[in-house]
Amino acid sequence: MESALGPRLVRDPDLIAPYARDTSRAVDEGTPLAVVLAESTADVSAALAWADRFGVQVSVRGAGTGLAGGAMAYSGGLVVSVDRMTAILDIDVANRLATVQPGVITADLDAAARRHGLFFPPDPASARMSTVGGNIATNAGGLRCVAHGVTSDAVSALEVVLADGRVMRTGARTRKNVVGYDLTRLFVGSEGTLGVITEATVRLKPVPPGSPRTFRASFPELEDAGRAVTAIVNSAVRPEVLELMDSLSVEIIESFHPSGLTAPAGAMLVGQTVGWDAQVQAETITALCRELGSDDTEISETDALLEARRLSNPALNARGLKISCDVGVPVAALAEVFRGIAQISAQHGKRVSTVAHAGDGNLHSTVESPDTPEGIREADAVIDDITRLALLLGGTISGEHGIGSVKRHELAWQLDPVALDVQRAIKDALDPNGILTPDRAI
Amino acid sequence: MESALGPRLVRDPDLIAPYARDTSRAVDEGTPLAVVLAESTADVSAALAWADRFGVQVSVRGAGTGLAGGAMAYSGGLVVSVDRMTAILDIDVANRLATVQPGVITADLDAAARRHGLFFPPDPASARMSTVGGNIATNAGGLRCVAHGVTSDAVSALEVVLADGRVMRTGARTRKNVVGYDLTRLFVGSEGTLGVITEATVRLKPVPPGSPRTFRASFPELEDAGRAVTAIVNSAVRPEVLELMDSLSVEIIESFHPSGLTAPAGAMLVGQTVGWDAQVQAETITALCRELGSDDTEISETDALLEARRLSNPALNARGLKISCDVGVPVAALAEVFRGIAQISAQHGKRVSTVAHAGDGNLHSTVESPDTPEGIREADAVIDDITRLALLLGGTISGEHGIGSVKRHELAWQLDPVALDVQRAIKDALDPNGILTPDRAI
Ligand SMILES: Cc1cc2nc3c(=O)[nH]c(=O)nc-3n(C[C@H](O)[C@H](O)[C@H](O)COP(=O)(O)OP(=O)(O)OC[C@H]3O[C@@H](n4cnc5c(N)ncnc54)[C@H](O)[C@@H]3O)c2cc1C
Ligand SMILES: Cc1cc2nc3c(=O)[nH]c(=O)nc-3n(C[C@H](O)[C@H](O)[C@H](O)COP(=O)(O)OP(=O)(O)OC[C@H]3O[C@@H](n4cnc5c(N)ncnc54)[C@H](O)[C@@H]3O)c2cc1C
Repeated sequence: MESALGPRLVRDPDLIAPYARDTSRAVDEGTPLAVVLAESTADVSAALAWADRFGVQVSVRGAGTGLAGGAMAYSGGLVVSVDRMTAILDIDVANRLATVQPGVITADLDAAARRHGLFFPPDPASARMSTVGGNIATNAGGLRCVAHGVTSDAVSALEVVLADGRVMRTGARTRKNVVGYDLTRLFVGSEGTLGVITEATVRLKPVPPGSPRTFRASFPELEDAGRAVTAIVNSAVRPEVLELMDSLSVEIIESFHPSGLTAPAGAMLVGQTVGWDAQVQAETITALCRELGSDDTEISETDALLEARRLSNPALNARGLKISCDVGVPVAALAEVFRGIAQISAQHGKRVSTVAHAGDGNLHSTVESPDTPEGIREADAVIDDITRLALLLGGTISGEHGIGSVKRHELAWQLDPVALDVQRAIKDALDPNGILTPDRAI
Repeated sequence: MESALGPRLVRDPDLIAPYARDTSRAVDEGTPLAVVLAESTADVSAALAWADRFGVQVSVRGAGTGLAGGAMAYSGGLVVSVDRMTAILDIDVANRLATVQPGVITADLDAAARRHGLFFPPDPASARMSTVGGNIATNAGGLRCVAHGVTSDAVSALEVVLADGRVMRTGARTRKNVVGYDLTRLFVGSEGTLGVITEATVRLKPVPPGSPRTFRASFPELEDAGRAVTAIVNSAVRPEVLELMDSLSVEIIESFHPSGLTAPAGAMLVGQTVGWDAQVQAETITALCRELGSDDTEISETDALLEARRLSNPALNARGLKISCDVGVPVAALAEVFRGIAQISAQHGKRVSTVAHAGDGNLHSTVESPDTPEGIREADAVIDDITRLALLLGGTISGEHGIGSVKRHELAWQLDPVALDVQRAIKDALDPNGILTPDRAI
């Protein structure tokens, strides 16, 4: 492998360290043997073929912004990083497709598309740091999902290196394609366990005309805000973004980065509308919110309100509040899940803050707890209860961050034994030696 | 098995015959042993467990409208039919989800949804005959895909019986869900080779307000019609339907069911717009068409133009013109593929008619040829050339009908050897005894 990779094989511990972990609260598993700073598909292929032959465990890394522990290095393992594969290979304006290497930063692809009047729909709050390959491998969500769906909806074709180093293409450049199993979708969200994505053809959309509006609606009652979201989603308006921050999270964000937000007693909805009728749509939404209990609404031409929402993760991190969850519920269950979270919070005597991609029913609740083994245990117990509540309401244990290592113990809460078996059978079929991101995600 | 199934196990040859084939031109493989007229998941499970134990080949059947030979019975095999599993189990209006048994007729689900102001987006031209399970198993397309995507975009969760009779659930009722591999998408389009779908939770959409308009634009030149489609798809208007019929197909449809359509020299675009601004949108589209070469346009409040398009399949069948293809190209390549098809037609001295889900770049070309072994061979040669042309233009061998048995020889034209291997590895992992729809689709 050394001869094939040359200086792209890095063994200096100081240079390795930044590649050994992601942004989750997963504990380090130990020091990896080396990092491959891949610059091509051939590099990735050489690295995996070598690892497969010698049974070396491999972690795959984009930008390491993942929150599930999927990119944590293995002790004595190999890290395959694609963060140097940053070429935007092609933007096909007429077909609205872009072909990119996996290490392209999400926001860079979006900016490149915008120069052609197009945009890249996936926009996790981490878009300025995360990679497109990482977005695909986690099937990332984001703020615009309520209008444009998740990352998988934007992926048309992939090039993938399998565990044994073989290279394969999936998908097509067409809008419809029913040729064999949908391998593209199988790799989307596979969290580095089935192969390394080395190229992706993604779907772009036209930038809507007019100028966007952001809106805010503050609610004295959290449950009312939940009901308002259900009503908005089922109305004729189609917001581009529809987010929720509860009282405590507004407080935390405001103290991290003061921008004049007043924490409401209940929750704050913030969102965006686009198109020629952005203003009318925003007015319709805020009027609906007032009908359903909001006592303070605002429409603005700047992005400041959304920027506040994007800061929730760093703001919570700055308080050391890393213990959060990513549950999803059907949108009509929002008010009920909020009521339940308040009860759980009271029962455990722990303060819980919740931000949500509300239009999708995807919640991130964070528990305030001391950073001690006991504090963490207590916080985990709260998260477990919230997760079970979401499942009870027909929900999911993860809406967008994925399973990685940190949510693996919850898998069997959602998936039946046969589904778990099938996942493992697929993993074994594609990675018989079990070298690729073993013991995670499934 | 007999004790478990009782009268639902049918062996009378007269009763079996209608279940032994689909609507494709696949040749019969022989008489099956029996048909299971499943009425429940337990029936399907009992049938598959038995077949798996005794190594009996199983074909799975919805309504048998498939055009790829996927539901053809095996000689001495078992047919598992789900056409009696027709219950609409639940319509959850607030979350816009319906849960159905697989044998529900597509149009019946749509009608049930409409009673709640919702609709079921997938609408193959066969919607009044095909089953929802069949649509899912083939990832069916249809007329509204240009606006709403394909069947996979409408599937939220499944219940599936695996080859050995075990029952599994996939997916969730939420809009986002990233828990393990996307098994839902793996089963969508798997054409009966990985399991039998026994229940599906599908996504509904709100019926657009206002009354729809249909539009027509006739073009003296076929290539201009192709260019117009590319322009419409890349414009700000969002047609709900955007179909193309070339001159010969309009002629054939009109002689099958006269409705006053005049065949243009080139092609006819027909489509639909919806929403409050349906009329304005239709006017924008027809104006664009005139700019790009149309010499005759029409806007109407009735559905008659689309009805004509829906008749293309029976009209061609009535002429014995069953030898058709289902290629897809990127939308910007439409004019080029039409030019190429004309050249191929001239080279082979065969008349070719083409209808297309034009907004998706999905073409059905049919070759006029005598129904003799030589005539079929000649027609197949034309289809092969059209298929290779589509691939050359970045296209696909099947946009919506699937591979089944009739397109299996083309698989390696599109998929690389590693992708073919991976498909087989997945099939072997889920159906180790190879009893479910063997030797088809992959
Ligand atoms: C401030 C902040 C805000 C965030 N907001 C959101 C949000 O709104 N929505 C959301 O969904 N997530 C969010 N995240 C989580 C994270 O940004 C996403 O999961 C992102 O998609 C990860 O991309 P990455 O390049 O950093 O991947 P990494 O963290 O490097 O890896 C993530 C997983 O993908 C695998 N992987 C990475 N690249 C490849 C590849 N090329 N081939 C195969 N596997 C690969 C890894 O093995 C790992 O399992 C946020 C994170 C932060 C820190
Ligand atoms: C007039 C006409 C017009 C058509 N128009 C279109 C169109 O516009 N778009 C389009 O995409 N197709 C079209 N088709 C093709 C066909 O209608 C679709 O493929 C449809 O989805 C098949 O549904 P079915 O219930 O008839 O399935 P079948 O023909 O019974 O089966 C099709 C395949 O799915 C499998 N299958 C069926 N049910 C299940 C199940 N419950 N579990 C697992 N596997 C299953 C079968 O094994 C087989 O491989 C048309 C066909 C006709 C005759």
